[in-house]
Amino acid sequence: MTNFSYFKRIFHGQHLSSPKLLALCSISSGGLIAYADSPSDVVGESKTSVNNQIETKRRKRVLVLGTGWAGTSFLKDLDISTYDVQVISPRNYFAFTPLLPSVTCGTVDARSIVEPIRNIIKKRDGEIKYWEAECLKVDHESKKVLCRSNIDSNLVGSNEFSLEYDYLVIAIGAQVNTFNTPGVLEHCHFLKEVEDAQRIRRTVIDCFEKAVIPGLTDEERKTNLHFVIVGGGPTGVEFAAELHDFVHEDLVNLYPSVKDLVSISVIQSGDHILNTFDERISSFAEEKFQRDAIQVLTGHRVLSVSERMIDMKAKSTGQNVSIPHGMVVWSTGVGTRPVVKDFMEQIGQGYRRILATDEWLRVKGCDDVYALGDCATVDQRKIMEDISTIFEAADKDNSGTLTVEEFKEVIEDIIIRYPQVELYLKNRHLFDVTDLLKDVNGKDREEVDIEGFKLALSNVDKQMKSLPATAQVAAQQGAYLAKCFNKREKCKIEPEGPRKFGSDGRHDFRPFQYRHLGQFAPLGGEQTAAELPGDWVSMGRSTQWLWYSIYASKQVSWRTRFLVVGDWSRRFMFGRDSSRI
Amino acid sequence: MTNFSYFKRIFHGQHLSSPKLLALCSISSGGLIAYADSPSDVVGESKTSVNNQIETKRRKRVLVLGTGWAGTSFLKDLDISTYDVQVISPRNYFAFTPLLPSVTCGTVDARSIVEPIRNIIKKRDGEIKYWEAECLKVDHESKKVLCRSNIDSNLVGSNEFSLEYDYLVIAIGAQVNTFNTPGVLEHCHFLKEVEDAQRIRRTVIDCFEKAVIPGLTDEERKTNLHFVIVGGGPTGVEFAAELHDFVHEDLVNLYPSVKDLVSISVIQSGDHILNTFDERISSFAEEKFQRDAIQVLTGHRVLSVSERMIDMKAKSTGQNVSIPHGMVVWSTGVGTRPVVKDFMEQIGQGYRRILATDEWLRVKGCDDVYALGDCATVDQRKIMEDISTIFEAADKDNSGTLTVEEFKEVIEDIIIRYPQVELYLKNRHLFDVTDLLKDVNGKDREEVDIEGFKLALSNVDKQMKSLPATAQVAAQQGAYLAKCFNKREKCKIEPEGPRKFGSDGRHDFRPFQYRHLGQFAPLGGEQTAAELPGDWVSMGRSTQWLWYSIYASKQVSWRTRFLVVGDWSRRFMFGRDSSRI
Repeated sequence: MTNFSYFKRIFHGQHLSSPKLLALCSISSGGLIAYADSPSDVVGESKTSVNNQIETKRRKRVLVLGTGWAGTSFLKDLDISTYDVQVISPRNYFAFTPLLPSVTCGTVDARSIVEPIRNIIKKRDGEIKYWEAECLKVDHESKKVLCRSNIDSNLVGSNEFSLEYDYLVIAIGAQVNTFNTPGVLEHCHFLKEVEDAQRIRRTVIDCFEKAVIPGLTDEERKTNLHFVIVGGGPTGVEFAAELHDFVHEDLVNLYPSVKDLVSISVIQSGDHILNTFDERISSFAEEKFQRDAIQVLTGHRVLSVSERMIDMKAKSTGQNVSIPHGMVVWSTGVGTRPVVKDFMEQIGQGYRRILATDEWLRVKGCDDVYALGDCATVDQRKIMEDISTIFEAADKDNSGTLTVEEFKEVIEDIIIRYPQVELYLKNRHLFDVTDLLKDVNGKDREEVDIEGFKLALSNVDKQMKSLPATAQVAAQQGAYLAKCFNKREKCKIEPEGPRKFGSDGRHDFRPFQYRHLGQFAPLGGEQTAAELPGDWVSMGRSTQWLWYSIYASKQVSWRTRFLVVGDWSRRFMFGRDSSRI
Repeated sequence: MTNFSYFKRIFHGQHLSSPKLLALCSISSGGLIAYADSPSDVVGESKTSVNNQIETKRRKRVLVLGTGWAGTSFLKDLDISTYDVQVISPRNYFAFTPLLPSVTCGTVDARSIVEPIRNIIKKRDGEIKYWEAECLKVDHESKKVLCRSNIDSNLVGSNEFSLEYDYLVIAIGAQVNTFNTPGVLEHCHFLKEVEDAQRIRRTVIDCFEKAVIPGLTDEERKTNLHFVIVGGGPTGVEFAAELHDFVHEDLVNLYPSVKDLVSISVIQSGDHILNTFDERISSFAEEKFQRDAIQVLTGHRVLSVSERMIDMKAKSTGQNVSIPHGMVVWSTGVGTRPVVKDFMEQIGQGYRRILATDEWLRVKGCDDVYALGDCATVDQRKIMEDISTIFEAADKDNSGTLTVEEFKEVIEDIIIRYPQVELYLKNRHLFDVTDLLKDVNGKDREEVDIEGFKLALSNVDKQMKSLPATAQVAAQQGAYLAKCFNKREKCKIEPEGPRKFGSDGRHDFRPFQYRHLGQFAPLGGEQTAAELPGDWVSMGRSTQWLWYSIYASKQVSWRTRFLVVGDWSRRFMFGRDSSRI
């Protein structure tokens, strides 16, 4: 036993002892602000007497594909004492992807944002099996998955194996979408994996080292130091800001001879960067970038990327523009992975662009398969498709008209089943659902017929939006699905979902509902913009501190929290490291 | 300016302000113990009035090849205001190589042991130019060096350039020596560069991930988990110990199903591991490894390495042995790099195995070229070669005999010029040099003739040993050479070296003299063995603490010191990270 085994025990344990709290209280101050769904309410419910009874039966096999936000969140909250859980992923760790832009410039180290999945797993009761392998094919007919270990070294034993499942949870994320632009796969960097961020870091240093080599013309030096980011979304903008800080806070001191030759450009096909954010944030970012001399080329579509040039079309003039570059980072769009595409063909979803699930995250047309996160989309049912059955179910006295009282009785189930209704009410600034039944002049009506009912709800479905491909959505979906799995047996007996309008009875579970808890756009120079719940917009230095505290609090383990905060402190004290390793 | 700019300024500065001292005083406690030559006495001397006078002349161009221990130590201590300094190295950082074995298992992170060479350079006055490039060829005739940037990406501009020099300092280190063993280059890992350590770390995790894949036989799992280290020197032994700790402190908890299948073997051609150390340390290490179930195969010579097998010959029985392996780390011997080999051909040293310098680190047969560290060896002059001229010089009255008084007058110069004399006295437990002149019966003699003088010194040259290829030697050589460069002009006028016995006058400088300050052999489980100055041997846990404090104190910058100590703390608190990145 080492001298330090006491400390080690303290910090290894899942629960906090008081010295640990003491030591780390300063770090966790941000923990008070909830960013994604807190899992604490889930764990408590799981060990019911119902679950204990079924333990005597054969435990169902749950196979989870992927250890990203969705998969890890599912595994963390799942009560694995009632299932036989198996996990497959080509990465044996969970990565805190929102900090990837920080990794590209060494503000945070790659190792600080990853936690081995086995560490996350072993903290919970029950047995779970993880294998570092890629899923090659899902065979839905025989409920099997073919896997291949991605270790390409010279080790003995077959790399391929197959696993059977009772429930399959697909959470393998998306791949980069190049929109078939020529040269992108060959000549661009991406920002999806930890390795991508490490590669970008090395390439930035390469560009600087190459630019100072004797014998180059100033034009060549300028080309090597032109950094291009394609995509003005949150990731691209954050990377541009990080790179600007890295260059102007650290690299100019180390490479003073070329400091005036560096340029950064952001190419955006839309009219504004950060166009999924509030307009105020978008303008704030554009002004900040203008001050920082980061060129923003809006309304430009990339036609092709070659080794040294990037070709674009300016939408306004229709003209083609070519600019030389030292490095291009492609940060736009997500695409479906081949294994998911193949699975979609099997289950008759081949015509779709992305795997569709219902509101309970069950893959459509496929029992016992669930899909979460970026690899799938929730296909929200339109209220107009069910309008007649809703009317029939609500019209208890079969009078052919619906009274306000009859409507009130079904409205709660409607709102749960069709969340777009609530959004519609909110956006129309209606406080009471019965306001929907008012006539065109805004006057109360005693009752409406089917045509009036259709008219009242006709615009509701327009509120439907597909969920963004973010960590927040994936984490909430994972936690939601774990909750459903934990109370599966209980809810079969006592369903807690809304009533079924087409048939009798109720749904077992409430459908998944996304709660948007805000989003951040760090803009460099200790300035961050944020959209917070309640349409609240916050910008500037205080928001950067909010960002620090929330990102620290949301780390998956005390270890990564300690490391990330350590990295931030290190960068304040010593700057970023520019060693090319 | 950020909120933290105050702290940043404090920590970026070269000199310590009191808050910095306060904040880091606990870290620097080990700084009291000197491990390598302290440079403080060098800096003070450099700015003499002599140097100021020559500043008006064209400054001589010094070209330094390499940023390892020797090159960095030279650059740190060189007064660059009097020279035009240029540096070439394929690595834009200095790596604290004694911690490489710790990097292989994640005890210390790779980034924590590297410091960008530009950071080290920019801290000092004057201008210095660094380029990330490899030296392809030294053209000694025209005093030019051909270089090529090692950036293989698609950046514009030629990668090749050449540089002229007045003085060339070769400090490019050595390469791995495979002794032409088949398969070593293809199938073995090495432990010379930071990238090597990172690759080993990933491979260890690969071996474990592969070993738990479904469908493998126990035999296959065992093979994948058999780690072989070739070479029982300090690096190999430390790596074996680190790996053992990593496996038994961290990995067995994450991969419990295969914990009994792991094995570690150390193959050593000699009869003992750590055979350059004191016997007590060697036995202590062997006993410790036996307790830890690390197999030590002494007296085995490796014949070949293939993808899955390693073939050896047991010296005692003469039989060939083949064992399957999951990973082999080759940690034995150093070889000459091709560019040095080519340079040796040019200057007539082609017949040698390793580049030879004189005692002033000047390359033999080649003015104005110096060689330091692992790439060269100091060819110490034998006293017997000069014995007649020494006798003549000492015999002032030309009497044909040497009196004790005459001998005493030259002895100081002899000891400086031929350091083996001092070693000889020490090993023979002689306190006074005049004891050398005693007759065979140990009685004092009044005078000796030339034959008697030859006899007295005949065994001295046997004390000569070539210096080991260690960081300590390289660092001392770098500091020594910088010192000589700093007082070059001054010493031309007032030479401070010993008298020349063959001719008139004195040498400009004292020759380089290595001072062995001890060496460590960490053996895992918080146990370290150390050889300290004065033939003092120390083993156990307290030595591990000495190791921690000395390694912390010897870091090249406050940044790396902070990071290394942080990494040690992290590992005590949270264990080592097993994410495969």
